[in-house]
Amino acid sequence: MTPLQIIKVGGAVVENEASLAQFLDTVCADNSLKILVHGGGRTATDVAGKLGFPVQMVNGRRITDADMLRVVTMVYGGLVNKNIVAQLQHRGRNAIGLSGADMGCMVSDKRPVGEIDYGFVGDVKRVDASALSMLLDGGYLPVMAPLTMDASNGGLLNTNADTIAAEVAKAMAQHYDVRLTFYFELPGVMLNPTDPSSVLASITRSEFDEYVKSGVVSGGMIPKLENAFSALSKGVARVFISNTEILNG
Amino acid sequence: MTPLQIIKVGGAVVENEASLAQFLDTVCADNSLKILVHGGGRTATDVAGKLGFPVQMVNGRRITDADMLRVVTMVYGGLVNKNIVAQLQHRGRNAIGLSGADMGCMVSDKRPVGEIDYGFVGDVKRVDASALSMLLDGGYLPVMAPLTMDASNGGLLNTNADTIAAEVAKAMAQHYDVRLTFYFELPGVMLNPTDPSSVLASITRSEFDEYVKSGVVSGGMIPKLENAFSALSKGVARVFISNTEILNG
Repeated sequence: MTPLQIIKVGGAVVENEASLAQFLDTVCADNSLKILVHGGGRTATDVAGKLGFPVQMVNGRRITDADMLRVVTMVYGGLVNKNIVAQLQHRGRNAIGLSGADMGCMVSDKRPVGEIDYGFVGDVKRVDASALSMLLDGGYLPVMAPLTMDASNGGLLNTNADTIAAEVAKAMAQHYDVRLTFYFELPGVMLNPTDPSSVLASITRSEFDEYVKSGVVSGGMIPKLENAFSALSKGVARVFISNTEILNG
Repeated sequence: MTPLQIIKVGGAVVENEASLAQFLDTVCADNSLKILVHGGGRTATDVAGKLGFPVQMVNGRRITDADMLRVVTMVYGGLVNKNIVAQLQHRGRNAIGLSGADMGCMVSDKRPVGEIDYGFVGDVKRVDASALSMLLDGGYLPVMAPLTMDASNGGLLNTNADTIAAEVAKAMAQHYDVRLTFYFELPGVMLNPTDPSSVLASITRSEFDEYVKSGVVSGGMIPKLENAFSALSKGVARVFISNTEILNG
């Protein structure tokens, strides 16, 4: 199968002009097939603050009320997405920005209200691999914003970008030899968060379970690794979590 | 040639939930090929105001400084565009939202600084008719935001939506039998702006020149009609300026 890289790039990278430029230079260093998925939470928090909307977080996850949905639609779907697309075009790549509503490419179910009401948040239901394949075949580089389309009423829903990357990777793994990279500001999964030399070269599912039990792996790294192992279990060939390993896996 | 409708829908229509729903119902009433172009200036002004950015207008045209460019990228490329796309998807239309950077579909030159410095404003240089044709052939309904891509540095530029609609119509007129409609909140070109019964059934270029000279046609209607006549001179079959004539020309 043809190799395809799904690269999720975190907010701290895309929201800094210099680090974004460096990242996009690396993305454009070769002509292999790629799909980018981006975050942008810090900018959303910043814009929401300036607009006077309180930012509500529970266990590190954002509560998306109607005002915040408007903000993330503006920031993820507009500001961050179009900025990345324009910079890729300037580098000679025929990029196209997509929310889940565009081409109906990512459809979700609004998360049921349990102990916590996350608001307008979607859990991915299906990714349209054929629409994305058509774009790749046409020479386009899809750039996906972390917004999905509500299956029940067509509204937009806020969706975690790591999860989107994993779901896109799983869907595309039926047709391509997929490598999934979570590219972010840290060197990788570290045993000691203050010591970059403690970064793990690799981690297995059972090691991960042990590290979670012992508290060595915690916080936002847990869902990131859950997404990684979920992708591996569904046909994705390799997953990288790193600030260096975009291209050379 | 295959008929194609280019429909520009104004801010006052898209920014009101009920009028937008009615407009989109009409758009979806038949399966003919269509491209939508939308505005959104009122929302941009509103968001800019809430963010504390002063709105600068000269002769009814917005001055787009760096802050305002961020606002229009958020509002046109994100909020308004994705909302229209999602609502079309909910109506069963496979819509796809595009700024000029997406697929490099609308490239512009930054307007030279003359008596007035309009800032980050682009004058359309070329429309990629083949990219839009590929989407139409694939069953997609393009929804275009009034943002173009700077030919010189790949940045985004603010561009008048009427002009975009006219330029898209001209480019597509080489391949399709194009009808261009400026759909807005008024019944059409009126001899007396307070009397809807004074609406003109049709207007020729020479009549337009006379009306401008006599002051009967003024303000924002002048560039709209200039765009209309420009489109007609470049192969567009028919142009409508109306709040009723979307589909039945």
